[in-house]
Amino acid sequence: MGLIVQKYGGSSVADAGSIKRVAKRIAEARRAGDDVVVVVSAMGDTTDELIDLANDITPLPPAREMDILLTAGERISMSLLAMAIANLGVEARSFTGQQAGVITDDVHGRARIIDVKASRIRQALDDGAVAIVAGFQGVTEHTNDVTTLGRGGSDTTAVALAAALDADVCEIYTDVDGVFTADPRIVPTARKLDRITYEEMLDMAASGAKVLMLRCVEYARRNNVPIHVRSSFSGHVGTLVTDEVAEGADSMEQPIISGVAHDRSEAKVTVVGVPDVPGTAARIFEVVAEAGLNIDMIVQNVSAAQTGLTDISFTLPASEGQRATAALTAAQSEVGFASLQYDDTIGKLSLIGAGMKSHPGVSARLFGALRDAGVNIEMISTSEIRVSVITRADQLDDAVRAVHTAFGLDSTEGEAVVYGGTGR
Amino acid sequence: MGLIVQKYGGSSVADAGSIKRVAKRIAEARRAGDDVVVVVSAMGDTTDELIDLANDITPLPPAREMDILLTAGERISMSLLAMAIANLGVEARSFTGQQAGVITDDVHGRARIIDVKASRIRQALDDGAVAIVAGFQGVTEHTNDVTTLGRGGSDTTAVALAAALDADVCEIYTDVDGVFTADPRIVPTARKLDRITYEEMLDMAASGAKVLMLRCVEYARRNNVPIHVRSSFSGHVGTLVTDEVAEGADSMEQPIISGVAHDRSEAKVTVVGVPDVPGTAARIFEVVAEAGLNIDMIVQNVSAAQTGLTDISFTLPASEGQRATAALTAAQSEVGFASLQYDDTIGKLSLIGAGMKSHPGVSARLFGALRDAGVNIEMISTSEIRVSVITRADQLDDAVRAVHTAFGLDSTEGEAVVYGGTGR
Repeated sequence: MGLIVQKYGGSSVADAGSIKRVAKRIAEARRAGDDVVVVVSAMGDTTDELIDLANDITPLPPAREMDILLTAGERISMSLLAMAIANLGVEARSFTGQQAGVITDDVHGRARIIDVKASRIRQALDDGAVAIVAGFQGVTEHTNDVTTLGRGGSDTTAVALAAALDADVCEIYTDVDGVFTADPRIVPTARKLDRITYEEMLDMAASGAKVLMLRCVEYARRNNVPIHVRSSFSGHVGTLVTDEVAEGADSMEQPIISGVAHDRSEAKVTVVGVPDVPGTAARIFEVVAEAGLNIDMIVQNVSAAQTGLTDISFTLPASEGQRATAALTAAQSEVGFASLQYDDTIGKLSLIGAGMKSHPGVSARLFGALRDAGVNIEMISTSEIRVSVITRADQLDDAVRAVHTAFGLDSTEGEAVVYGGTGR
Repeated sequence: MGLIVQKYGGSSVADAGSIKRVAKRIAEARRAGDDVVVVVSAMGDTTDELIDLANDITPLPPAREMDILLTAGERISMSLLAMAIANLGVEARSFTGQQAGVITDDVHGRARIIDVKASRIRQALDDGAVAIVAGFQGVTEHTNDVTTLGRGGSDTTAVALAAALDADVCEIYTDVDGVFTADPRIVPTARKLDRITYEEMLDMAASGAKVLMLRCVEYARRNNVPIHVRSSFSGHVGTLVTDEVAEGADSMEQPIISGVAHDRSEAKVTVVGVPDVPGTAARIFEVVAEAGLNIDMIVQNVSAAQTGLTDISFTLPASEGQRATAALTAAQSEVGFASLQYDDTIGKLSLIGAGMKSHPGVSARLFGALRDAGVNIEMISTSEIRVSVITRADQLDDAVRAVHTAFGLDSTEGEAVVYGGTGR
């Protein structure tokens, strides 16, 4: 007898019918003999509706109150799911983040889990019950205040519980069949991966793949929790995320590349006319860091010999673009640059695969494929298992398809699949 | 500087606009210098919508899960209200029943408050903040499970907090201007009462007046908490519920009767052909009590000399009628009665007033008024400050109007008022 943690996203519990279907799946897992802990997100669009309600009240809701508001969503879905399971004759008990012992820091809106005191969950399992836990939420250690973990937080809740309970696997149920070599909405020939390493999955998530959130994968890697990403709508085996490289990887049978991710959510800021003297670039990124902004890629042009001036470009989430330009403008006279350019019509393509470490020529083949497709490259960054390029946003789809084909990732079966996010 | 507890029902916070209006009233009270604790119900029909959701899942939701589900409603309204107050520049902090220290027994669905540990509320007040508390909910002492207090529970939360904090007054805001001499939808000439005693209010509530729930008034009387029932839509002074008899009461200026309540929610069960021997009636009511049912009025007919059989009638909430007849039918051979009759087309009229204690002839005038209006009386029960009669349901409105006039309660002003419940 094993212990399974299952996580169901909002689209899997969108209405009474979906909740009953998920309940059936959970009851079957329990009847098969395993201990089952279920983490559940809010139903369908509940969270967005609650956010809209808050925005009707005030443009700047206090973060503590916002967290209390949003956690109502999981309270509804978890109790309904527990009722549906009980209705099938299987005992189920629901637990809020607090009751489940999910202790976080006090950063409302994007709190980090610092401990999981799962004694009540263990007790429920010992009593033979299925434990249903509200995802996305926790409680501060000393003040007992309700916190939320940010987007993708329910996945993190599931992985954290799996780690605390030493579960055999953490199954993340979503509306797609697993992790794909590319977004099938853009690349119809994309293939589902049977396995992927934590490192590859981290780079996929960091590069815009929405199937798993970065923090959840980080948590799983740190605690060595195997994740099984699979569909709540089909019975298919999905994608296993572990620290093991797939059998046959780095050989002829297995491609060296696991996938092509893309991201349309970034913007590019160019600082024009920067004095090319030591410390100026550092000062620019200090200003950005002081504003609490995370930047992604950086390019510094070769300095023009006549003027001694250079341009520095960086990318960051477009949602933080306004704060970045405001912070830099305030520091313009101190830093001494000429002007700022802001561009949110960019796209990022990332090629990911642990296999590329030992294969020279990956970058060359990537750039060749993009050239052949007529796609201009504006910025480049590389790591051991990833190469990312910035293109024009309207060329991104073509770029993804060209690269997917160039690296032999196209499926010969041409499956029809639907790809989407996991909610939170 | 005083301490005020204010309670707002669901209709007062039905949407973003209502929440902002209520927030303005709270901010004004705070700026006037008082410490303010606010208890809030779920928005509008939220609770009913959540009940519908549960019914879509299962016909018999486990009570513990139902409580977790329903408490989501207050979590939403309390956080939105705190945001709206903060938006007006007044600090506000929201607290769940648990955070507010509302400790209850473990009877899910209708838990009783056994303690209020309001240290966090006191801290918020000491910090100058308005404390917003989720009504209707508490937490069990040892297992930390979420409970609800049943219909009218938010009123009880407000009174319990007022008692624990030794508040100067507990203001119950609702959609009517106060407590009326009768339901103005039935009696357009009904008058708002300026004052009413706990005892009278208890009898009003027990007799079907929905403006305050019985348990809330009981709690207030036991702890001597003054209640001010008033409208959240107008600035009018409402009705004060205290242990003081109104000035001039029992004199020519003040009527001896405070109001006429009515109730359509009861049903009558008649046990036909009961052997008129000692212990049989007792056994009938034991059977009913063992089924957990509360009965209201009882009438036993004079035994027919020839047969030695009698009929026993009693009333109880119609919602419990099915359980009562089932329990009695199961005990039919043991008790030895002939048959059961069930009638849910009855109405109850109650005349209430502390003044009637010292005034003989109140019953006579009541029965005379009903006779003149052509209303037949089926059952009668009396207490020191109340006389109740059962009539046909379709005669109840006529009966209420006739009695209201006969006791001189009609207003000479003919105010147009709207009467309704307080939600919960």
